[in-house]
Amino acid sequence: MSGTRNITAALRRARVPRPRFAIRTVQSITPLTTRTFSASSTRNSDSRQIKFTSDAYPNLKRNPNFAEISAEDVTHFKELLGSQSAVIDGVTTDATDDIEPFNSDWMRKYRGHTRLVLKPQNAQEVSKVLKYCNERKLAVVPQGGNTGLVGGSVPVFDEIVINTSRMNQIRSFDAASGVLVADAGVILETADQYLAEREHLFPLDLGAKGSCHIGGNVSTNAGGLRLLRYGSLHGSVLGLEAVLPDGTIVDALSTLRKNNTGYDLKQLFIGSEGTIGLVTAVSIQCPPRPKAVNVAYFGLESFEQVQQAYLAAKGQLSEILSAFELMDGRSQKLVIESTGNKHPLEGEYPFYCLVETSGSNAEHDMAKLESFLESVMGDGIVADGVLAQDETQFQALWRWREGITESLSHLGGTYKYDVSIPLADLYLLVEDCKARLTEKGLVGDDDSFPVRAVVGYGHMGDSNLHLNVAVRQYSKEVEKAIEPWVYEWIQKRQGSISAEHGLGVAKREFIGYSQNETMVKLMKQLKNLYDPNGIMNPYKYI
Amino acid sequence: MSGTRNITAALRRARVPRPRFAIRTVQSITPLTTRTFSASSTRNSDSRQIKFTSDAYPNLKRNPNFAEISAEDVTHFKELLGSQSAVIDGVTTDATDDIEPFNSDWMRKYRGHTRLVLKPQNAQEVSKVLKYCNERKLAVVPQGGNTGLVGGSVPVFDEIVINTSRMNQIRSFDAASGVLVADAGVILETADQYLAEREHLFPLDLGAKGSCHIGGNVSTNAGGLRLLRYGSLHGSVLGLEAVLPDGTIVDALSTLRKNNTGYDLKQLFIGSEGTIGLVTAVSIQCPPRPKAVNVAYFGLESFEQVQQAYLAAKGQLSEILSAFELMDGRSQKLVIESTGNKHPLEGEYPFYCLVETSGSNAEHDMAKLESFLESVMGDGIVADGVLAQDETQFQALWRWREGITESLSHLGGTYKYDVSIPLADLYLLVEDCKARLTEKGLVGDDDSFPVRAVVGYGHMGDSNLHLNVAVRQYSKEVEKAIEPWVYEWIQKRQGSISAEHGLGVAKREFIGYSQNETMVKLMKQLKNLYDPNGIMNPYKYI
Repeated sequence: MSGTRNITAALRRARVPRPRFAIRTVQSITPLTTRTFSASSTRNSDSRQIKFTSDAYPNLKRNPNFAEISAEDVTHFKELLGSQSAVIDGVTTDATDDIEPFNSDWMRKYRGHTRLVLKPQNAQEVSKVLKYCNERKLAVVPQGGNTGLVGGSVPVFDEIVINTSRMNQIRSFDAASGVLVADAGVILETADQYLAEREHLFPLDLGAKGSCHIGGNVSTNAGGLRLLRYGSLHGSVLGLEAVLPDGTIVDALSTLRKNNTGYDLKQLFIGSEGTIGLVTAVSIQCPPRPKAVNVAYFGLESFEQVQQAYLAAKGQLSEILSAFELMDGRSQKLVIESTGNKHPLEGEYPFYCLVETSGSNAEHDMAKLESFLESVMGDGIVADGVLAQDETQFQALWRWREGITESLSHLGGTYKYDVSIPLADLYLLVEDCKARLTEKGLVGDDDSFPVRAVVGYGHMGDSNLHLNVAVRQYSKEVEKAIEPWVYEWIQKRQGSISAEHGLGVAKREFIGYSQNETMVKLMKQLKNLYDPNGIMNPYKYI
Repeated sequence: MSGTRNITAALRRARVPRPRFAIRTVQSITPLTTRTFSASSTRNSDSRQIKFTSDAYPNLKRNPNFAEISAEDVTHFKELLGSQSAVIDGVTTDATDDIEPFNSDWMRKYRGHTRLVLKPQNAQEVSKVLKYCNERKLAVVPQGGNTGLVGGSVPVFDEIVINTSRMNQIRSFDAASGVLVADAGVILETADQYLAEREHLFPLDLGAKGSCHIGGNVSTNAGGLRLLRYGSLHGSVLGLEAVLPDGTIVDALSTLRKNNTGYDLKQLFIGSEGTIGLVTAVSIQCPPRPKAVNVAYFGLESFEQVQQAYLAAKGQLSEILSAFELMDGRSQKLVIESTGNKHPLEGEYPFYCLVETSGSNAEHDMAKLESFLESVMGDGIVADGVLAQDETQFQALWRWREGITESLSHLGGTYKYDVSIPLADLYLLVEDCKARLTEKGLVGDDDSFPVRAVVGYGHMGDSNLHLNVAVRQYSKEVEKAIEPWVYEWIQKRQGSISAEHGLGVAKREFIGYSQNETMVKLMKQLKNLYDPNGIMNPYKYI
């Protein structure tokens, strides 16, 4: 078969036992519908069917210290932002249809009661808005692409939405240093395409790239698909511009790789989910775009073998390894059901992995990959696999990983748990959760069972699992069966109850499972320092 | 010549013009005396000749709010730490000789008046010490290996030194994840040797590795030689344990690569120079140790060509590039004069570069390096060069870079400026500074001139220059000729007045050249939050 020559030759040379299935190239993959998802799917459907967060979380009460938005406030904001498109006014007009998309999330899980959306165009406008809100004690929710998974970017009650979509300019890029400076509202994929034309790469990639904003990525400390190669945003973000609740503009938009002049305050805005300030621009270190990228997709018989494959990849692919993703058999069946696409492997396996290499020399990378494949197939670690031969196949293989989230979203609802667990126990959580729900009689194929499927996938290279419980509809019964059991399970293993999705509304009350009392106290002290009136993204985070 | 075969063959194949000098292997390099330096050089000489910082900086006044150490305090500490070796008591006994090494720095530039050194053994002991000091308003200075360059780790007045040398245990290492957990007082080289035995690498390396403590590295956000490959400590440190001035133990010693549960408070301790707390342990992500390491050393005719060589290395060596260091001609002459060693290149050049590659496949790395050398020599960018052929040569070449600091230390004194500047202007600062001092009649070969040499070297890959003005003795005349001129020069180019060395005493009053008023205000607010009595490392930082 074309494209398999090198690998089989290598296997022959090494006289390793013939694997059960030869590596084949991807011939018959139909591209999935889209690599990205967006809030537009929510916008087009009737979001009024979504349960209000205030009903789903009856323990959340509107803070009586917050003012109610008045017609005068709206007039003030209209004058201040000076543009028709900058204010969506549901206070003095009936703008429900226009407002609703900003009130609810794409998962159809969280829904607020806002009647006002503001879209400032720069830090100065944000400053004026926040200063006014702080003085008037009007609560606000910063919102980027609204692609989050924990309800962090939509209101709970009548908080004003401050949306970053009109701050969407790339400010500068320096090819010598690789430093990009861009507004918070630039869409991640737009930034990456801009960099691609300049032979560089945005050091973050994730499924929602077509919709999410880089300001939101930084505010939530997004991890994504290639963290094991390019590191966390705490390392790659060089500077940022943000506005504090009192209107203070924090101009820390340094483009220097090294700057040891005082406390690195920008770090506080990375991952603070808009609770101490609103990020308006970001300066970030971008690596040269790899000249060669390869993707392989494997089927494996056990999680033990997945671990062996990962350690082999870490050792042998080393500096060119750019992703090592895990998908369980159930997750891939969901993608098949949702898209109707033909699966790249013929047999069925309980586990699948996607391995990506990125490097500067195609020949060297292929040699390393061949040697790795030879080793994992020769040792019987991998049962079957395919290797992408061109960009289309590359994209198609990735969609088997990136498409899981969207496939799940078609099923009704999903309880999502994004957790860090020591590698050896990573998949055990899925098995234990499934056993628990099955034992309680909650899982089944017909519509009388609330749970459709318990699915696990994630970033093996970061010890980061996404446990997803797909339900026909959200119910307290299922939720109570999972929580706090799942958090206790993670706490026992010193894991994190939120690896990369953040806290938002969903994980707020569970922070104690991953942070001790002292840490929570220190966090509250910090929140109080920057936001004494508590107007920034209330009812969430800590 | 042996070892040159591949490169000349490659050059022939590519029919590139013959370079002025062929690449030769390193044959005749005598290893320099040592790769590390330590405070012991200070200890063995008479530190009483060093000027007191309080005299050199007459604007610094002892804070009258601080208590004076009493005999009762000493008794309390002795009981608390319960060990003879944990307290060096210059209060009730004459322990001047034992105390002096902790009062002064290895550069012989800063000297304090402390009469008490404490060496607690764990966070609990540090907690008790700090709680007591905070209540008694006794000022303290956290001290690691005391290898800093800005006077940050020695007292100014009678601050109690809290030295971390007795917290020196490696707590754990997990080979699957590469996460090391170790006490703050573990010496960097010790940690790296421990990791080497386990096929991993500490993601930080610097000249002082034989003496510096990893807690000090984290507290000063050390950058070092391989930041361009392994990133900053803000990315690689996963967790830490620290003690706040009020005795609160911050247990944030997570070993998880991803943990988005609340504000990332550990970031505040990275680079805060012991002003808000004392770091007692660190958890850090360590990469697999490269299987192949190559080092090349070049001579170049102009800084323009240094830039071209760097961009070629970035593009062609890409993922295996692990260091790109710049040394000017004067710096290399100083190493020759100080060590008597024969220089690896025959001719003299105004600029030298050290390029290191680290990868997982020796054959691939050599092919990439050959292709790079072919290109930079064929294009006439590099005039001459040598390539290390074994570990001894590798170490010897590195000493031409790492030995500069020590060579300078033998000359009398050095005004050190560690700055970030956009790449194109990086070396212009050295030229402008030299021209300025020459014009003022301050530079010359005989002893009547205060300035011996103006030297530039640094981390080209990070746009980080070390400007060093070597003087026969420290004098106000020279200092006034350089400062604030040098800071204004950097400010004009949006650079940083401290790229990696930090602020300490030396840069404290100049922070305004790299941080705006708002940032400084926010920093002071934070300092006040954590250390309202101001006992932690006073007279320094911000």
